Amino acid sequence: MPTISDVAKLAGLSRATVSRVINNHPYVTEEKKRLVEEAMDHLGYIPNSHAQFLRKQKTNIIAVLVPKLTNPYFAYLVESLERQASRKGFQILICNTLYDKKREIEFLELLKKKQVDGIIMTTIENAWEKINAIPLDGPILFCNEYVTGVNVPSIRLNNVEGGYIGTRHLIQRGHTKIGYCWGGDDRSLSKDRWEGYQSAMTEQRLPIKKSWLFEKTFDIEDGRRVMNEIMTMEDKPTALFTGSDEVAAGIISEAKKLGLSVPEDMAVIGFDDQPIARVVEPQLTTIRQPIEEIGDMTIKVMLELLTNKEKMKKRLIYELPLKLVVRDSS
Amino acid sequence: MPTISDVAKLAGLSRATVSRVINNHPYVTEEKKRLVEEAMDHLGYIPNSHAQFLRKQKTNIIAVLVPKLTNPYFAYLVESLERQASRKGFQILICNTLYDKKREIEFLELLKKKQVDGIIMTTIENAWEKINAIPLDGPILFCNEYVTGVNVPSIRLNNVEGGYIGTRHLIQRGHTKIGYCWGGDDRSLSKDRWEGYQSAMTEQRLPIKKSWLFEKTFDIEDGRRVMNEIMTMEDKPTALFTGSDEVAAGIISEAKKLGLSVPEDMAVIGFDDQPIARVVEPQLTTIRQPIEEIGDMTIKVMLELLTNKEKMKKRLIYELPLKLVVRDSS
Repeated sequence: MPTISDVAKLAGLSRATVSRVINNHPYVTEEKKRLVEEAMDHLGYIPNSHAQFLRKQKTNIIAVLVPKLTNPYFAYLVESLERQASRKGFQILICNTLYDKKREIEFLELLKKKQVDGIIMTTIENAWEKINAIPLDGPILFCNEYVTGVNVPSIRLNNVEGGYIGTRHLIQRGHTKIGYCWGGDDRSLSKDRWEGYQSAMTEQRLPIKKSWLFEKTFDIEDGRRVMNEIMTMEDKPTALFTGSDEVAAGIISEAKKLGLSVPEDMAVIGFDDQPIARVVEPQLTTIRQPIEEIGDMTIKVMLELLTNKEKMKKRLIYELPLKLVVRDSS
Repeated sequence: MPTISDVAKLAGLSRATVSRVINNHPYVTEEKKRLVEEAMDHLGYIPNSHAQFLRKQKTNIIAVLVPKLTNPYFAYLVESLERQASRKGFQILICNTLYDKKREIEFLELLKKKQVDGIIMTTIENAWEKINAIPLDGPILFCNEYVTGVNVPSIRLNNVEGGYIGTRHLIQRGHTKIGYCWGGDDRSLSKDRWEGYQSAMTEQRLPIKKSWLFEKTFDIEDGRRVMNEIMTMEDKPTALFTGSDEVAAGIISEAKKLGLSVPEDMAVIGFDDQPIARVVEPQLTTIRQPIEEIGDMTIKVMLELLTNKEKMKKRLIYELPLKLVVRDSS
């Protein structure tokens, strides 16, 4: 069984530094973190607190609730979570809620029945009060999702900023008629992006036209539908902010089919930076979600929650940045 | 609690017909099947044998092992399985093996520990002997995967036919230099497609050149790599059969970047018919996997296995057809 000294020796660092990395101490350089993690992986070292948990506890399984696996953002997120979890000796079970309240409750009951140790929610369907009323035997952690005013740890991205930088980019490219595609629901995440869009628009005193707001857009086919709807308008938007690369890809594909040029007649910006962003033509300008970092942070915090129950009482928010990736669709 | 008579009444059919649909009797028209299933869904009717099982047994959870969720084929397959399972009162847990032998064994142990009732394997990593040696407490069913000479029920697609019709189509379009992209492993499914390709080529006495066989191709980036490799060849293939729409999309995207015309300079055929097939330009000619039918059949057979253990002793093979979808990349 490798020890912390073995890790320190292989990494060429002090035991204190290794310990700081293990405990997520803030003042450690990325380079040292990387060296320690590589050494831990190489030796198969499992920190004591985790090792104790692994011995004492129950399933070594963490459930991840996702709303729709056919959205590649969630498929990649799950793989990132799994990579990190398996490095720490945990299995991930993937639960596809399909945006369904009943299914969500059924999956949450895995925790009640002690079939899993903890649950990561990348989506929430039911009111928090309803979930909170279930006597769950383990922690819940939100990942790129949250509920306002609720005391649950969450890994967040600054989606207000995401909505803002995307919209501002389109404005900087000279667009004044900018439409907006979204799920049209009242999720925190959707509201945040919408707030960012509004703030970029009003900052420049640009009009937000109701007919340019497209709800219930989730995938490629929805993007095609939006584009066809725009063709019937007298006053058309010249640019679209979308909440997903898939929707943006559908818009571009349909626009070209209809004889329009992208970005000249219609500029489009996606969200996520999925592989499809580089296959569609022109390649997509998009807001990159740092999926590896999200997975890494989420599993680290989940392990904290499993091994240190005190933290569950506190409100824990970890925020990660979103980044604009400019390609040819804008 | 709705009865079989309620279903018959709502469907406007006899009780005998309803019963035939429930028991997967072969001589029922698709139309009647649809009517009965709609009525069952509407009423929330669960057949007796299933209801008994739900009452008596354990978790009502079926695990599905997939090799890679970021391959959309598996994401869509899982959603199809879930749709069918939840109609029958079962939950699906998704286990992403990442083509890893150790992970596969860990997931299979869910069945040993009775955390799930049965396992659907859409992939296999370990030798069957090793899996068979685990004392599993429930059935295993292969879905679009199988092991030669092994007595396990399986839902199959005719992949020999798939390889054959795709390759023959390229030949009919005038190509004689046809390359082949695949995982390069010794899976039954890969071997079958490869057999189909070979048989179409040798039927026309066309050469199979070793340098035109590209192994380890799984995703968009692999497709780009293949295209760049071809550019360095003196004697280039003019058409490629691929085992995935993603690989085909990568080839097309890179070919255009390199100034080639598709299909004039390079014809490409995909496999699966994923949404990306219609976003890439030119749109992909591909072999359609009937994902809905696969999901439907798989869950039906799994329920048979759970409720009627006798069948587990027999060798059960259900075969579904593959279909060529001709678009603009060939």
